[in-house]
Amino acid sequence: MNDERVWTAALLVIGDEILSGRTQDRNVAQVASWLNRQGIRLAEVRIVPDDEQRIADAVNAMRTQNDYLITTGGIGPTHDDITVDSIALAFGVPVIVHPEARRILEEYYATRGGLNDARLRMARTPEGAELIQNEESGAPGVKIGNVYILAGVPSIAAQMLEALDGKLEGGRPVVSVTVGAYAAESEVADILRETEASHPGVVIGSYPFFRDGRHGANFVLRSVDGPLAEGTADELSRRLVEAGLDPVRGGI
Amino acid sequence: MNDERVWTAALLVIGDEILSGRTQDRNVAQVASWLNRQGIRLAEVRIVPDDEQRIADAVNAMRTQNDYLITTGGIGPTHDDITVDSIALAFGVPVIVHPEARRILEEYYATRGGLNDARLRMARTPEGAELIQNEESGAPGVKIGNVYILAGVPSIAAQMLEALDGKLEGGRPVVSVTVGAYAAESEVADILRETEASHPGVVIGSYPFFRDGRHGANFVLRSVDGPLAEGTADELSRRLVEAGLDPVRGGI
Repeated sequence: MNDERVWTAALLVIGDEILSGRTQDRNVAQVASWLNRQGIRLAEVRIVPDDEQRIADAVNAMRTQNDYLITTGGIGPTHDDITVDSIALAFGVPVIVHPEARRILEEYYATRGGLNDARLRMARTPEGAELIQNEESGAPGVKIGNVYILAGVPSIAAQMLEALDGKLEGGRPVVSVTVGAYAAESEVADILRETEASHPGVVIGSYPFFRDGRHGANFVLRSVDGPLAEGTADELSRRLVEAGLDPVRGGI
Repeated sequence: MNDERVWTAALLVIGDEILSGRTQDRNVAQVASWLNRQGIRLAEVRIVPDDEQRIADAVNAMRTQNDYLITTGGIGPTHDDITVDSIALAFGVPVIVHPEARRILEEYYATRGGLNDARLRMARTPEGAELIQNEESGAPGVKIGNVYILAGVPSIAAQMLEALDGKLEGGRPVVSVTVGAYAAESEVADILRETEASHPGVVIGSYPFFRDGRHGANFVLRSVDGPLAEGTADELSRRLVEAGLDPVRGGI
């Protein structure tokens, strides 16, 4: 159990629109959930501006420290879409027009006004890359080495993730079991710490809330060993009852 | 103009709950907007797990590369709240119980069951730190050097940001002007690129959408020179009209 291989991924979100506060990011949660289903742990996220060198530096730091790197954003047809160029820079390879991507776009735009220079930008990849299917908008995602280059629009990123389902090697997914209680975190802090300490392989997070005029918290137990997480939740619930609380399995 | 000092900040979001996909982050957009009002540019965001060494490494990388570093998350009363310890590690200083923070918490909990060990955890700071006021939950934020340690709960983080309003030196805020049009990005890519190229000091981002069965895009012009951004938006609108489009100032 303890020497089980843990597969990790990093996520690089590329886009001035996120850093300016204009756009609420939706890809972190979506990619995190998808990775967990593949048995891969999201180990780090970075959000960087539309700047080639900064993107390239982040790509090289993150792809070497993790099994996989996923990027979102910056692969459209306009001048501010510089992800492919930046990742080619990171890998030290030229940018080419990928023949298969060109064919896909020609077909997609055949009934939509034809392929112009801007649209052809979306057929550019770092040399040596493969394509990731995208049925929604025609323009494919790109894979080079352990780097997966996805669209920034969440619905298109979701389609590309679906196309990758089951294709990245991973380990066992992390199982989460939630126990909620109307209690101040600070009243149950000892119980949480002791329960976690006596159950190696389970990590307990505590997430307070204030709702309908009452303070409470959800305690999330995470483990790759599902039965162990469930058993630890039983033990935690028992201790919360002993402390005079009324824990709710599944959370509040 | 061109040698105007640009103030930058980084944001470090600390928390397994974001990386697991359980919790949708709300602090990136909130901190980004707040920073812009202070005339400070959000240059990078990282999200890291609840791991002392990883937090400390990110803190040291980001605080040295930016004028300011803001962190959110991990300052509550439970065992998984390790931000203060991690930042003390980053600065190479011990963790102390801050006398003023202790006094604030004693007062806050006087009518709420008193100060126990878990609650006293929230009075711990790196040695040499100052406090950031927080009226909502009693527990203060912490400032050490150029690092501002805020709560992860978005409403509490918002209160701490409010307490910091106007206290961080910055430059001119970035002004955004939006022009929208029902057009495929790929049809106007040349116009966007040329308009940006002929107006140094203005950056144009293009954000496509598909809504009510129609494709369109919003073009966001950003500059610290508000009149320049407005004038460039006039020019962009003129060119879009010439191309047979019907641009909407303020966006669609």
